[in-house]
Amino acid sequence: MRQATHTLSITTHGKGLYAFTDQAVAWVRASGIQTGLLTLYVRHTSASLLVQENYDPDVQTDLARFFARLVADGDPLFEHTLEGPDDMPAHVRAALTQTSISIPVLNGAPTLGTWQGIYLFEHRIAAQRREVVLHLIGEE
Amino acid sequence: MRQATHTLSITTHGKGLYAFTDQAVAWVRASGIQTGLLTLYVRHTSASLLVQENYDPDVQTDLARFFARLVADGDPLFEHTLEGPDDMPAHVRAALTQTSISIPVLNGAPTLGTWQGIYLFEHRIAAQRREVVLHLIGEE
Amino acid sequence: MRQATHTLSITTHGKGLYAFTDQAVAWVRASGIQTGLLTLYVRHTSASLLVQENYDPDVQTDLARFFARLVADGDPLFEHTLEGPDDMPAHVRAALTQTSISIPVLNGAPTLGTWQGIYLFEHRIAAQRREVVLHLIGEE
Repeated sequence: MRQATHTLSITTHGKGLYAFTDQAVAWVRASGIQTGLLTLYVRHTSASLLVQENYDPDVQTDLARFFARLVADGDPLFEHTLEGPDDMPAHVRAALTQTSISIPVLNGAPTLGTWQGIYLFEHRIAAQRREVVLHLIGEE
Repeated sequence: MRQATHTLSITTHGKGLYAFTDQAVAWVRASGIQTGLLTLYVRHTSASLLVQENYDPDVQTDLARFFARLVADGDPLFEHTLEGPDDMPAHVRAALTQTSISIPVLNGAPTLGTWQGIYLFEHRIAAQRREVVLHLIGEE
Repeated sequence: MRQATHTLSITTHGKGLYAFTDQAVAWVRASGIQTGLLTLYVRHTSASLLVQENYDPDVQTDLARFFARLVADGDPLFEHTLEGPDDMPAHVRAALTQTSISIPVLNGAPTLGTWQGIYLFEHRIAAQRREVVLHLIGEE
């Protein structure tokens, strides 16, 4: 049994989903581990992780639009407004989605379904540099 | 240290929670692993996973009704409507819940609380065949 | 490769976020494991887990207020009311957040971002005693 870790850096330019399926799958492949567990962890509180449909790009824009409506920028409910009207809503949208996702690995690849892609979900308007830590444990 | 993996197939017939606690617990028991980590992963983007109360069935129907109201079928916000009025809302409900859940294993069993059951949360109306990948790592 | 497990007990006195970052980090440090995976699991269905901003306490109160508004106590939608008007909403708020979170460990510490803290999110009004199971797998 052995482990591998890696930190992916993802540059975002506004709210929405940013795919990193290919990078994650290639990294697992390169590790040589055939059977194991891949864990993705986002090191931020105003961005999150999603596994979602990778086929029709409308799904990704609809997801972002739903979350933007459910948790509106500038909502007067919020007292934490120092970092801008999109900051506290970004924290809430992150809380409503996922900080970590773990995916079993078989035959050297994550067991993603046919239509599943892996996304960083950016919740802030301004450009950001985000880090996702990848951890893999398993056997060759 | 060793691993085990298994794919559960769950047939659904409409929105709601489908318990698979017994199958997951029995599989962990049969593996012989006493101390470890169980990970559940759903291979779909319009169904998700929940650990929720297993005692009063009203909790399960109330959960499904809340999510059906929060993300309504046919919401005109959505542009991805090719697969029917319940498809995009199903993706959103999946995004609002969990794609993977990891549960520590002690004494040969997942450390579920007294009232915790493990559920597949189906978000689509038509019958579906869903796959949940189980991964276990640990020691006898 | 080796494992460690521990159960944290957290007493809550009403809705809101309860930090346990320090306890989790200290326990990882004491284990001697340098590289691995830390998993947190909450054994309840009316409390959940969040990794969120640890700097401005307003973020924590704003998060609690948003979830209290999104899923209101006493909502007539709910039929499960036997355990009080805040019970079923508590289950929904738990379903909307996370039951387990896994964080890679490097250099003997969870790879939390600079502003990330680990919280139990209590969704009930009355005082409760909550259990979070910690599982760590890795190498020295």
